Amino acid sequence: MPQTRPTAEDLARLDATAQAELVARGELEPIELVDAAIERIERVNPRLNAVIHPLFEKARAAARSPELARGPFRGVPFLVKDAVCTTAGDPYHAGMRFLKRHAYHAPDDSELARRFRAAGFVFVGKTNTPELALSATTEPLAYGPTLNPWSLAHSTGGSSGGSAAAVAAGLAPAGHANDMGGSIRIPAAHCGLVGLKPSRARGTLAPAFGEYWGPLTHEHVVTRSVRDSAAILDCSAGPAVGVPSPAPPVARPLRDVVGAAPGRLRIGLATAAGEAAVHPDCVAAAERTAAVLAELGHRVEPARLPELESPRMGPWIAPAVARDLDRFAALVGEPIGPDDVEPFNWLMAEQGRAMSAAEYVKQSEEAWTWARALSAHWGREFDVLLTPTAGAPPPRIGELGPRTPLPELFSRLGAYTIFTMPFDVTGQPAISLPLDWNAEGLPIGIQLTAAYGREDLLIRLSSQLETARPWAGRRPSVHA
Amino acid sequence: MPQTRPTAEDLARLDATAQAELVARGELEPIELVDAAIERIERVNPRLNAVIHPLFEKARAAARSPELARGPFRGVPFLVKDAVCTTAGDPYHAGMRFLKRHAYHAPDDSELARRFRAAGFVFVGKTNTPELALSATTEPLAYGPTLNPWSLAHSTGGSSGGSAAAVAAGLAPAGHANDMGGSIRIPAAHCGLVGLKPSRARGTLAPAFGEYWGPLTHEHVVTRSVRDSAAILDCSAGPAVGVPSPAPPVARPLRDVVGAAPGRLRIGLATAAGEAAVHPDCVAAAERTAAVLAELGHRVEPARLPELESPRMGPWIAPAVARDLDRFAALVGEPIGPDDVEPFNWLMAEQGRAMSAAEYVKQSEEAWTWARALSAHWGREFDVLLTPTAGAPPPRIGELGPRTPLPELFSRLGAYTIFTMPFDVTGQPAISLPLDWNAEGLPIGIQLTAAYGREDLLIRLSSQLETARPWAGRRPSVHA
Repeated sequence: MPQTRPTAEDLARLDATAQAELVARGELEPIELVDAAIERIERVNPRLNAVIHPLFEKARAAARSPELARGPFRGVPFLVKDAVCTTAGDPYHAGMRFLKRHAYHAPDDSELARRFRAAGFVFVGKTNTPELALSATTEPLAYGPTLNPWSLAHSTGGSSGGSAAAVAAGLAPAGHANDMGGSIRIPAAHCGLVGLKPSRARGTLAPAFGEYWGPLTHEHVVTRSVRDSAAILDCSAGPAVGVPSPAPPVARPLRDVVGAAPGRLRIGLATAAGEAAVHPDCVAAAERTAAVLAELGHRVEPARLPELESPRMGPWIAPAVARDLDRFAALVGEPIGPDDVEPFNWLMAEQGRAMSAAEYVKQSEEAWTWARALSAHWGREFDVLLTPTAGAPPPRIGELGPRTPLPELFSRLGAYTIFTMPFDVTGQPAISLPLDWNAEGLPIGIQLTAAYGREDLLIRLSSQLETARPWAGRRPSVHA
Repeated sequence: MPQTRPTAEDLARLDATAQAELVARGELEPIELVDAAIERIERVNPRLNAVIHPLFEKARAAARSPELARGPFRGVPFLVKDAVCTTAGDPYHAGMRFLKRHAYHAPDDSELARRFRAAGFVFVGKTNTPELALSATTEPLAYGPTLNPWSLAHSTGGSSGGSAAAVAAGLAPAGHANDMGGSIRIPAAHCGLVGLKPSRARGTLAPAFGEYWGPLTHEHVVTRSVRDSAAILDCSAGPAVGVPSPAPPVARPLRDVVGAAPGRLRIGLATAAGEAAVHPDCVAAAERTAAVLAELGHRVEPARLPELESPRMGPWIAPAVARDLDRFAALVGEPIGPDDVEPFNWLMAEQGRAMSAAEYVKQSEEAWTWARALSAHWGREFDVLLTPTAGAPPPRIGELGPRTPLPELFSRLGAYTIFTMPFDVTGQPAISLPLDWNAEGLPIGIQLTAAYGREDLLIRLSSQLETARPWAGRRPSVHA
């Protein structure tokens, strides 16, 4: 037993694995971890607006309950993004003023929430998301912007900005996130975190079954360490009963490949994508990482990926937005009108309503053909692709927000997703690592992308980079 | 070396594995197997109309080529259904008068065709299919009906009726088939063959990527033995590069589980599906198989599957038909009008054109939710479900044909697919076995369905049934 109990600040420096070890060794009770997280959220969250639905009393009850699951993260405080992954009896607003006004609560846990609970996590709150999780920033009109703990004038990125800000600031060691165009990786990049987007169908979207944004939706977490991201995926991976197309299982638990040598890999480096301007800070971050990888003995060579110059995003988003509005209107029993929805999303819904099923099928085919061509570079030319995560550093609050005129918003958004969105279409695993900071002190993430199903390779390589260039000691200006 | 060369008739009695062994042991050359198949096709096919595009000269050249692949089926004659699986330079008409009139030829092998070739198979011809493979019989206006070798007045079932008639009559030991609503299993049932529909995404639809009928499309073969079906799937399984959601690989090659004891299984028996009338011959076939399974030591109990009473077929077929017509019009450079398409399919295309993307997404969600509920019975209540394959014995030629008035056609079709279509939606593997014949001497198939990914269990159990109630000696009245 330690001589003195660790303070909430001490615990804020520990990742989920380390917090779980304290409980497993009997040095702390789950309630102590949870109380410390609640204390940090109460103290620091008002500056960030990351946690929008505190679940403090339920969390304390869960931490004290004899039924708290004896999983590998028993007693560890955890945050759930307020989108896609429902938790029983808690507010579910998906960034919508409409659902907030109706104080909508989700009746059930999603299967993913059940798996997080079975891992032993205790949900201490739900985190902010842009409306319908459809943005590269986290500034919903419903709940206001989440601020970046590295610089309160800057965006956290989106759409998992609430979880990212909270984890970066040490409020909880891990937070649920989901990625349909970069929404795990971009906030991880902008907030200095590890953000792994798993292979398509690695986990489960039950009961929604991938219909949220169709095949684009990937669920996981943002964390501060590679080992947390690996070990949490071990807990949440696997198909639900009846899932139409589960991913092949990983060969061994990902936690077991943390620290395992990746061998000498062929790394492709791409820092441009067609005409889009990539910010020099992001190019520099990828190039510096390339140099580290070369030092570590990997072969790093420029990659030519013509597919990135004419991306195909498929037909999935717009009809899904239309469908979501219909769904929420039905849930609440009141129609949703244009004043209920942010302008960008209302436009998407209208586009979705106007699309024919034949067009949907045609665009799907085009996207799959394109995805196949893009995926074919792996194995043939390189094992892992290295790129910047986002094409630009964190934007200032307001630049991508819902009050931005739509033409400007459209022209700005692309820069953020050029390197992330393609792998939501191919379904390949991709991870953002906090390996660089620019002159302003803002985090600049780099992205590693592997072949489908090869999260194990990403974990090995990320773990090697984490050892070579450790980031655990870097903390944002706002930190618990 | 044998004293006398086997005749074409002798070879007609051998399955693909046995024919391959003759080549592997050096007892026969590939060209001898291929010449024998060509001889049989020339002699018998005029009575069946199963092979519609002979590929004899190409087949002879392939059999003699030093580049003939040294796969496990080296030199074995094989037939390819004229739908979905394209073969380079060969006619591809998909049962359409429009494509026949334009003498359309496919430019490339599909990935599946490449895998069949890599297994060593020699394509000796392409087989008949209903228009767009969209029927439970094989009677396209473009090529006329394929006749059932057990009774020329009866249908082969569809849509893989051309391959099924040819294999049942001994023209080739195996033929490609695909199943979007029962199109492998129903012809297997009606023609006395083994028809395994693999798990969704077990193989590859590249370059079309499952967009043919969306997630409903499953590719494989019809064969006379369980071991052929297992060993051929070993050759064709595995994702293509870039496939969005491949199936988890089987734990060991399926050929290695042929003959392996399945253990004592819990078998659910269902012979009804809601209001639909199931023909007594089909009920009796399933019940007789249930008795055999009980004798073999399995626990057989009635299964209650409320989901079968209100099936969900998803939104996929109608827009895919519309899309296919657009695709073929573009390929040929001429519009397709109502006179170019059979009435049922034109109606489907019109329905597909009228559907909105939002409706498509909504129906997808409903189908996945339903599929999940249906799949959840496996493991919980039983390991394998036993049903009739089709709900009725082979219909007479004309009963389901393209000149049948649509209201009658709609009312008749359902009886054939009530037990097959659900598993195209869930993506579970299901196999039809030729375990019964009715008083008229027509084959009645039974279907076994396992949990997703468990083809191995189906192969073990099918193999046990094949040993207990061997069917290899039964041959149709029309046989080479």
